Amino acid sequence: MNQKTFALLENCMRACMGDSAHDAEHVRRVLYLALTIAETEPSANRDVLIAASLLHDIGREEQFRNPGLCHARAGAEKAYRFLLDHGFSEDFAAHVRDCVRTHRFRSDDPPASLEAKILFDADKLDVTGAIGMARTFFYAAQVGQPLYTLLPDGTVSDGTAEEPAGVHSVLREYRVKLEGLYGRFLTRRGGELARQRQAAAVRIYRDILAEAGAAYETGGRILREYVTEGPQT
Amino acid sequence: MNQKTFALLENCMRACMGDSAHDAEHVRRVLYLALTIAETEPSANRDVLIAASLLHDIGREEQFRNPGLCHARAGAEKAYRFLLDHGFSEDFAAHVRDCVRTHRFRSDDPPASLEAKILFDADKLDVTGAIGMARTFFYAAQVGQPLYTLLPDGTVSDGTAEEPAGVHSVLREYRVKLEGLYGRFLTRRGGELARQRQAAAVRIYRDILAEAGAAYETGGRILREYVTEGPQT
Repeated sequence: MNQKTFALLENCMRACMGDSAHDAEHVRRVLYLALTIAETEPSANRDVLIAASLLHDIGREEQFRNPGLCHARAGAEKAYRFLLDHGFSEDFAAHVRDCVRTHRFRSDDPPASLEAKILFDADKLDVTGAIGMARTFFYAAQVGQPLYTLLPDGTVSDGTAEEPAGVHSVLREYRVKLEGLYGRFLTRRGGELARQRQAAAVRIYRDILAEAGAAYETGGRILREYVTEGPQT
Repeated sequence: MNQKTFALLENCMRACMGDSAHDAEHVRRVLYLALTIAETEPSANRDVLIAASLLHDIGREEQFRNPGLCHARAGAEKAYRFLLDHGFSEDFAAHVRDCVRTHRFRSDDPPASLEAKILFDADKLDVTGAIGMARTFFYAAQVGQPLYTLLPDGTVSDGTAEEPAGVHSVLREYRVKLEGLYGRFLTRRGGELARQRQAAAVRIYRDILAEAGAAYETGGRILREYVTEGPQT
């Protein structure tokens, strides 16, 4: 790939993703992680991989405007049309389209080609480790979700308990989604990189739970003992 | 303090802070941490401490609407008027006001009373450790700041380098502010709790830098080698 083609694809990504520095950083990391995985997959088509990495989230805005839409499907069609409009071959555009379409967890439409599997793994890697946790905090803040919720007894939930309708805390997201990711990579190198990052995510989850848990347990006990049912003295 | 008084103060806090679950969680942790510190400070006035903890951030909305305002000063006056309006003594209201006014880092107006020092430490404790880092991510997301920035050579900055005007990444915030907090506590117990949490924050900073750094270094090298200046082949 030459620099002009790379700049064309990168500009398309930036234009589609608005000003979000956070989203553009994610795309850059996915591109770099995909290329890192591809080092041990010599038969991978790097042109397809670079294009698919840069364009994999360009359907986010469509999904944001219409939550019923799947950003992977919307982005796949958008990428396909963009590539055809800019003189790429039908084969190339269709290959990129398929990679983008299957980059999400969907049991009914798994990644088929090697490049699609590499993009899938690179995107999943970015929700592993400390960066994955940081992104989860960013996302929670953007959609107004809390760090944790409380159990009926006023202690901090470890994320295993159901949460009220409309509430989905960071600790819950870790327990129902992030924690189980590490065994679900499709390439050897992707799985290795995920396992290298796993301990960092586990520590963040445990440290937050321990710090919040201790504050609520000790402080809550003192408060219950101190605040009385009787009249103010 | 009786339950009715506690509910009155807590409702004032909730009404002043809008719907932000994140802010209300912070206030609850500060209250609990203040009570935890006060366990080793038997002469601390717990009524003052509870009121000051619950009300310490009620000036946030004023500062949000008018960034020139200091939320500690605005909140102090608001708390003072609220307490007088609800039948608390002038002495009590003035003591709480002084605690709220001095809970921020300001060299010109340090906390004077024991209760003010405890509130100061409890509020600072909530920016230490894994919770402090999580709050920094939440805040960055809310104000549109990135996780990190890049150096001119395309590698990830460790936060020690100046950032462009208007940009203040999480890694920069850690290096210029959070990292130096741990030695600045005013009570013995506050300092101990901060040091217990320090390793968790250091790990998160290092893990993010290591993960992002490795991705940009390896992926960036592969990309530079692969994307050529010449025409598309």
